[in-house]
Amino acid sequence: MNGLHRVKTSSSLRKTRSRLGLHPSAPIDEDHDIHERQKLLWSRIRIALREPFAEFWGTFIMIMFGDGSVAQVLLSTGQETAPGSNGFGAYQSISWGWGLGVMLGVYVAGDSGAYLNPAITFCSCLFRQLPWRRLPIYFLAQVLGAFTASGVVYANYISAIDHVEGHGIRTVPPSKTATAGIFCTYPQPFLTKTSQFFSEFVASALLMFVIFALKDPSNNGVPKSDKWFPLCLFFLIFGLGACFGWETGYAINLARDFGPRLMSYAVGYGHEVWSAGGYYFWIPMVAPFCGCTFGGFLYDLFIYTGRSPVNTPWMGLKHIFRPDYAWQVRNEHLRREKEEGIV
Amino acid sequence: MNGLHRVKTSSSLRKTRSRLGLHPSAPIDEDHDIHERQKLLWSRIRIALREPFAEFWGTFIMIMFGDGSVAQVLLSTGQETAPGSNGFGAYQSISWGWGLGVMLGVYVAGDSGAYLNPAITFCSCLFRQLPWRRLPIYFLAQVLGAFTASGVVYANYISAIDHVEGHGIRTVPPSKTATAGIFCTYPQPFLTKTSQFFSEFVASALLMFVIFALKDPSNNGVPKSDKWFPLCLFFLIFGLGACFGWETGYAINLARDFGPRLMSYAVGYGHEVWSAGGYYFWIPMVAPFCGCTFGGFLYDLFIYTGRSPVNTPWMGLKHIFRPDYAWQVRNEHLRREKEEGIV
Amino acid sequence: MNGLHRVKTSSSLRKTRSRLGLHPSAPIDEDHDIHERQKLLWSRIRIALREPFAEFWGTFIMIMFGDGSVAQVLLSTGQETAPGSNGFGAYQSISWGWGLGVMLGVYVAGDSGAYLNPAITFCSCLFRQLPWRRLPIYFLAQVLGAFTASGVVYANYISAIDHVEGHGIRTVPPSKTATAGIFCTYPQPFLTKTSQFFSEFVASALLMFVIFALKDPSNNGVPKSDKWFPLCLFFLIFGLGACFGWETGYAINLARDFGPRLMSYAVGYGHEVWSAGGYYFWIPMVAPFCGCTFGGFLYDLFIYTGRSPVNTPWMGLKHIFRPDYAWQVRNEHLRREKEEGIV
Amino acid sequence: MNGLHRVKTSSSLRKTRSRLGLHPSAPIDEDHDIHERQKLLWSRIRIALREPFAEFWGTFIMIMFGDGSVAQVLLSTGQETAPGSNGFGAYQSISWGWGLGVMLGVYVAGDSGAYLNPAITFCSCLFRQLPWRRLPIYFLAQVLGAFTASGVVYANYISAIDHVEGHGIRTVPPSKTATAGIFCTYPQPFLTKTSQFFSEFVASALLMFVIFALKDPSNNGVPKSDKWFPLCLFFLIFGLGACFGWETGYAINLARDFGPRLMSYAVGYGHEVWSAGGYYFWIPMVAPFCGCTFGGFLYDLFIYTGRSPVNTPWMGLKHIFRPDYAWQVRNEHLRREKEEGIV
Repeated sequence: MNGLHRVKTSSSLRKTRSRLGLHPSAPIDEDHDIHERQKLLWSRIRIALREPFAEFWGTFIMIMFGDGSVAQVLLSTGQETAPGSNGFGAYQSISWGWGLGVMLGVYVAGDSGAYLNPAITFCSCLFRQLPWRRLPIYFLAQVLGAFTASGVVYANYISAIDHVEGHGIRTVPPSKTATAGIFCTYPQPFLTKTSQFFSEFVASALLMFVIFALKDPSNNGVPKSDKWFPLCLFFLIFGLGACFGWETGYAINLARDFGPRLMSYAVGYGHEVWSAGGYYFWIPMVAPFCGCTFGGFLYDLFIYTGRSPVNTPWMGLKHIFRPDYAWQVRNEHLRREKEEGIV
Repeated sequence: MNGLHRVKTSSSLRKTRSRLGLHPSAPIDEDHDIHERQKLLWSRIRIALREPFAEFWGTFIMIMFGDGSVAQVLLSTGQETAPGSNGFGAYQSISWGWGLGVMLGVYVAGDSGAYLNPAITFCSCLFRQLPWRRLPIYFLAQVLGAFTASGVVYANYISAIDHVEGHGIRTVPPSKTATAGIFCTYPQPFLTKTSQFFSEFVASALLMFVIFALKDPSNNGVPKSDKWFPLCLFFLIFGLGACFGWETGYAINLARDFGPRLMSYAVGYGHEVWSAGGYYFWIPMVAPFCGCTFGGFLYDLFIYTGRSPVNTPWMGLKHIFRPDYAWQVRNEHLRREKEEGIV
Repeated sequence: MNGLHRVKTSSSLRKTRSRLGLHPSAPIDEDHDIHERQKLLWSRIRIALREPFAEFWGTFIMIMFGDGSVAQVLLSTGQETAPGSNGFGAYQSISWGWGLGVMLGVYVAGDSGAYLNPAITFCSCLFRQLPWRRLPIYFLAQVLGAFTASGVVYANYISAIDHVEGHGIRTVPPSKTATAGIFCTYPQPFLTKTSQFFSEFVASALLMFVIFALKDPSNNGVPKSDKWFPLCLFFLIFGLGACFGWETGYAINLARDFGPRLMSYAVGYGHEVWSAGGYYFWIPMVAPFCGCTFGGFLYDLFIYTGRSPVNTPWMGLKHIFRPDYAWQVRNEHLRREKEEGIV
Repeated sequence: MNGLHRVKTSSSLRKTRSRLGLHPSAPIDEDHDIHERQKLLWSRIRIALREPFAEFWGTFIMIMFGDGSVAQVLLSTGQETAPGSNGFGAYQSISWGWGLGVMLGVYVAGDSGAYLNPAITFCSCLFRQLPWRRLPIYFLAQVLGAFTASGVVYANYISAIDHVEGHGIRTVPPSKTATAGIFCTYPQPFLTKTSQFFSEFVASALLMFVIFALKDPSNNGVPKSDKWFPLCLFFLIFGLGACFGWETGYAINLARDFGPRLMSYAVGYGHEVWSAGGYYFWIPMVAPFCGCTFGGFLYDLFIYTGRSPVNTPWMGLKHIFRPDYAWQVRNEHLRREKEEGIV
């Protein structure tokens, strides 16, 4: 918590937060006179929804820069009035956009842990003891943030999209003037279904593996302070874009892909946003979960020495094959939580 | 103030500074034997104008690199004698130029807070208790810094501009050989007035939102030390250029746009610098203030828990709708200031 | 060891590790309840093979991003459906890929020292007192990591390779559609054998010279903390790619070149992977050792003031020309080790 | 001195160092058992020449990457076998090469202060109390380092130069296949002599102004630790290349231009290396001194509050116009030095 303490919030607020799946106390700087402000309605709401707001805005910033970079490069392709007379950016701009979008999003969303990605939240629950009841509201906040941000990008570039596609025309790849690729990912035409899945799977596994390394305080290569994490993440995301971004567009994130896809469907890109690439849309929803889980498993298997299911008997699978054992561990866990006053 | 103390300046200097709208004591390192130097005329001037000088030179450095990068890319477009035989830079160089220009400008202008942008100074007054009387002289210093720097860039590239446009000819887009775009921004021709305004508004809102996050000491994602701020700003400005820089040229700063525009008018680019794009020139003057205010408001609304008008009854609007209340708060504030000896 | 202590591992584990050439105690965070976990078979294996696992995965990550970037740029060359309509990356992407691959690999492999390169391990033994018995298992882990990672890259891009070369066709430069260059390096055709060797030699010497500077705690220019090292390494590798990467592809690493070359031979690129460029394959195996040794020697000769053979009589060559002296030094060394309980 | 102490060196060494213009005690880590090593001849030489060696190798590294990047881009222009099929790098690679070359050079040359540029050494003497007697040997080391490094770059790329120009042919711009631009700078043909001078002058002034800001411990914007300096320098040099690098090639450094120019003359580029561009060669020798002096003067005039001639009566010009005053100050200075035992 970097020098901050969880502030004693009023008991009604604690109940609300607990019901939402959050820790009863909000992560707020103690210096701030929260008590007085709790009299204001909106301040109470802000305290109750602190982490979801953080995830929402973190994802929002990520998508603004990410989708914004694709929009600028794609829509201005080959424009001769540009300085340098060849468009306002090249493919590399997209690596920059997503890389720095994630970096700045992590800065913005510091209060929630800055997952910005349901698959990473999922693996943090699975491998790193983040309580499972956090998952639903984080998930919702992430998808909504991505949905909203892609809407703003659409509004910002609507004149330009009209200019490129023709007024009111909206198409999806492989149309030659397709602009749907600004918002969500569409695979290269020569890929088999297996290759599509594998490409997303590999990129997601890399993502989780390296993030777990960067967040592992017992790895000697990693600075103990968290200060370097966002910059390292910039390089990681940049790298995924430059090295594994071609075949399927490195969605590696349900929120990043599904939110904007829904938005593009809503504004009129038509049913093809779902059917394109042989109903590709489910792959960037499912593959990131599989890939991140595998990547996290590999890290814990080979390197991690801290507390993880992989470091328990049967590598954590005892939970699955021996339900009585899982039940016993869970009860133990709940009992301990109650003792410590966390509901 | 990072370990520095405001030095006891002589009482005449204190009065001068106060009259200029500055804090009576200049932010100068105590180790420096200011007392002795105050006998020198110029040292007195330097102490009196410390923050305006910092803003002037910070903005100067920002514009030198920013306008310089546009000049180099635009004027050398397609030059075959370049290594790589396609000009001395591409559109991305401009993202680099502005990004690192702002970064280095912030390093240079550390003594004043390094706003470099009237809209950001304005929002710091509105949301972060920077005294309003600082605004005029900061504003002046920023515009003058941008004006001067663009003049130096013009002087540096005058041979090359003559080479590209023809001796003594100076044109404004959409002329094919226009070089006015080196100094200030001109919108893409297909944009409606609304899209022009919206594009500047969105980029400004993003700018202010992320800067408030990076400057928020109670945001857990942000390093407590200020050391990372300039580098993060590099990524932020780079991102605005790569993701929202095409349509209107991401001025997002009155000083950055109006200063150089005035300079280009003065050296003979003609009346078109004002009339181009349907008298576009007022948009990068007005939109940044609106956008930054909205971005700052969003941050305070959803994330900020410190002292801000948004965290007061009626979200600070009580000041507007109940003048008696505002009067009362203001008197309270002045009284406190007088007690603490700040005039 | 950055605040970690070598944990008392059980005596059978100590013996196993010692036999493998490793330090008897594994570098594991003391807080982790290793004792209990040592009852689990896999945890014991993980402790026994801690440093080889770190080297394996560090090299793996490096090759994933490095080879991945070459694959993406090479296979998507000129693709018109790309945003910007000219492929998914340019040569610079490859500098990014290798630079950030090494950076992230060093973060991952912190527990072993993160050499990722047999030549650097070799020079650390020669000049920096890393025990020679570490070399074989580090070497094996590095080559295996590179081999495995290049296999994953191949699997990921197999559809695309089929698309570019034709189904099941695999060729080696100078074939026009050659894709073997994704995995290992092939020299430019106009180079003489001497130039090939010299180019790898110079790049390797630069690599070792700058790494020794960055790791030299008595060099005033270098931050005392290790935190900056991975980022500096990014710039160093990026620079080698941008400045000395053309002629021979800057392998500068036996593991990086030989591992993937073996893999490409195994999957059917044919005997040409060895014979291409006049049986070039041995140069990136031998030259890095010569170059790194020379670079390390130069640094120690002109700048290093710490403990190094160069700072002993006859610049360390007394060991070579006077075997009795070497024998005496070695016995002294072994005796001291035994006293300190390191076997 | 970052936690290091100047080691008591033997009295004969102290005399040698003093005669060379260096501080009598070498900046060496106290932990290192220097006393014993002083028995070795080479160790004595290394201690005597510590700072010149540091400047030599720092400049060497800078030129290796800088000239190397130009060589790679220029010689591989348009090569179709490159991944991406358009050469191994574009103009931006050169910004990278010089930027990271300077950064890594500063890391390497930490023991001497890492000036790497006679004009910066000169301004440090003029404005920052670096003793003038350091200048000659630093100057020599810098020019020799640049000369040597450019020779190694030439040797590395000799096959490729033969390939591009024809065996044994070496030409200077404006020849179409000229490769002399790899080593030193040649101006664009449309520039007048004034523009040539002004361009180098402006870039040098920017360089010195920003470096003085980054090195000013009383500037609130600058981190107190030196750790960020090399990275900031990367951005500064990158920016000069991207924004002011076109017209004259941003030499801004006598050593960087004259050393390699001499080398290229020596290996047979002919008399044109001096006569090209209307005997341009003297401009990158003279303009950096003028520009850096002006830039340093501006910084001290408007921002610096520490000890500087500009902060003395008559802004330091009293020294020039009143020789008796200068004499008096100098005697005072020498007397103080003698008292403190520095000869």
